[in-house]
Amino acid sequence: MSQCAFSANTYAGIRPIKYQNNVLSLLDQRKLPGEEIWIDYTDYQEVAEAIRSMVVRGAPAIGITAAYGAYLGATAIEAKDAEDFAQQFDAICATLNATRPTAVNLAWALERMQRLVRANLNQPPINLKIGLEYEALAIFEEDLRINIAMGQNGEKLIPDQSRILTHCNAGALATGGYGTALGVVRAAVNAGKQVMVLADETRPFLQGARLTAWELQRDKIPVTLICDNMAGYLMSLGGIDCVIVGADRVAANGDVANKIGTYSVAVLAKEHNIPFYVAAPLSTIDMNLAEGKDIPIEQRDTREISHIGETQLAPEGISILNPAFDVTPARLVSAIITERGVVQDDYVVGLKKLTGKGS
Amino acid sequence: MSQCAFSANTYAGIRPIKYQNNVLSLLDQRKLPGEEIWIDYTDYQEVAEAIRSMVVRGAPAIGITAAYGAYLGATAIEAKDAEDFAQQFDAICATLNATRPTAVNLAWALERMQRLVRANLNQPPINLKIGLEYEALAIFEEDLRINIAMGQNGEKLIPDQSRILTHCNAGALATGGYGTALGVVRAAVNAGKQVMVLADETRPFLQGARLTAWELQRDKIPVTLICDNMAGYLMSLGGIDCVIVGADRVAANGDVANKIGTYSVAVLAKEHNIPFYVAAPLSTIDMNLAEGKDIPIEQRDTREISHIGETQLAPEGISILNPAFDVTPARLVSAIITERGVVQDDYVVGLKKLTGKGS
Repeated sequence: MSQCAFSANTYAGIRPIKYQNNVLSLLDQRKLPGEEIWIDYTDYQEVAEAIRSMVVRGAPAIGITAAYGAYLGATAIEAKDAEDFAQQFDAICATLNATRPTAVNLAWALERMQRLVRANLNQPPINLKIGLEYEALAIFEEDLRINIAMGQNGEKLIPDQSRILTHCNAGALATGGYGTALGVVRAAVNAGKQVMVLADETRPFLQGARLTAWELQRDKIPVTLICDNMAGYLMSLGGIDCVIVGADRVAANGDVANKIGTYSVAVLAKEHNIPFYVAAPLSTIDMNLAEGKDIPIEQRDTREISHIGETQLAPEGISILNPAFDVTPARLVSAIITERGVVQDDYVVGLKKLTGKGS
Repeated sequence: MSQCAFSANTYAGIRPIKYQNNVLSLLDQRKLPGEEIWIDYTDYQEVAEAIRSMVVRGAPAIGITAAYGAYLGATAIEAKDAEDFAQQFDAICATLNATRPTAVNLAWALERMQRLVRANLNQPPINLKIGLEYEALAIFEEDLRINIAMGQNGEKLIPDQSRILTHCNAGALATGGYGTALGVVRAAVNAGKQVMVLADETRPFLQGARLTAWELQRDKIPVTLICDNMAGYLMSLGGIDCVIVGADRVAANGDVANKIGTYSVAVLAKEHNIPFYVAAPLSTIDMNLAEGKDIPIEQRDTREISHIGETQLAPEGISILNPAFDVTPARLVSAIITERGVVQDDYVVGLKKLTGKGS
């Protein structure tokens, strides 16, 4: 029920989520860059499936989508009173929360929706529904403002003429718009800096090849695509000046869970004395987890690796591992960029101060 | 014209090359694992195109194929004398040598064929043709024996119960049979050790997913496929005990050119105190190059990255880099395993001693 300076629905840049009149529309990110297909959702269980199957992905975008999914679920609740409503709403949120384990923004957004209900149990269910719609909108619009603030904080770290490596997609498509890591890139460009992005293709889901390349090409920001295994070689040739990635969950000590392969990039960056930056909103920082080793790592379907579309790449019946994320220890992170400022060096103290949480 | 203890044509394991009666047959490695298609060659220019388009790949297999290609070219030479024959043969070898720049075995095998001609200029052309056929066969059969010797030397480095990471395919399919890096694995298995292989899928050509997985599955050696960006994470979890890779060219100081991504694996192995072994025959060691930085690195068609079959993965018109190899400095290499012994520590001295070359 927060006041918004501008509406996310009128933001001119790329965005993967739209909402109007009880219809949530998601840009199907599985089909990019070949096709731009929007899917409309009115049912929370279908929204849950959209998150699970990665129609939408990226920690902040998942949070926004889950908030709207919870609201759509709420619209169908028939409750005798607020307490009954709250119980039914909790079940809806539990379904949405079970879709993906690693990105903490999912739980964060749903908790925020549930908190609104629990704080208003003196209201009739119809008012709770109205409140939830506003709360989802607030989460959406705040995300955009947060990303722009994060960009302004982060771009100061990016020298002019930088060649910036990024892994996965932490851009407009991963958020309500503008992006986290790519928001920093956009802010650097807006500040008049000439930069270029090297995009890891990011196997197996190819978020770099399909999404990062697509959105930077749209915004006319120079981008060059490489395979994940090429970044180290380019670093050894002096071809990369800094690394910026997003995050799916940051522990209280600064350990960072992000797309699989991020840890390897961080080790390589350290080997070559290249700064390694993480751009993440405060909603991604989980002060309840002391260390990265406690972050649950999602294992996804091995078909993501064995097949591309209908093309089978690996022999039938082969054993495959598909961890979707890894954990980069804080010692490899040069700075964590948030909407409230940049944290460096002592992450335990810095993150506590910034979030106002933790003992 | 060397004497052979057994014939490569009767070796029972997997092999990608067959030769009989002026017909060279190559297993089309672009089609594996989906289809096992053999292509017959009688024309050296078609053999050159087969090397260029990676019907056959892997440094030792390229050397063998080029030797047979040169012989097939020789069969069509109409020369008035041996000197005329030698000149025409040099032009054939130059065409074959221009197909791929990084693997030194290509030049090595062709030089050996040319040396035979130059050493026998007192012979009529018909005798030179017969000699060249034997020389190609010798290169083929020696490769198999060399790989078996390399396996015996290398397997002593592999503890029982090892979980071995490999990158690309340095197996039977990359050689005359048995393999270099995978030859060491096979020798460890033959010695009664229980090992398992983790195979990097190896983008963009997917030699790990398509070839290493296929040939180890055939030989019932446990293999698990991962994406290239997962190896670092598995190392951080303690899931990898050693790394073995092949090589396309080793400089006199022990720097190793191998499939793109090898350097990153070596840096990650060092970070986790995991031994990083290179298995390479002496024909891969280029004592004419002092350091790895002098090794030419092939840049391949960007379509290998933007497409899988007919499926387009990246946006139209995007900039892409596709270096096919990288260079791992000797300081990251725990040992170089050859058919003549294992070199460790001082590679400059060790390789000079082993090859009998260098100043």
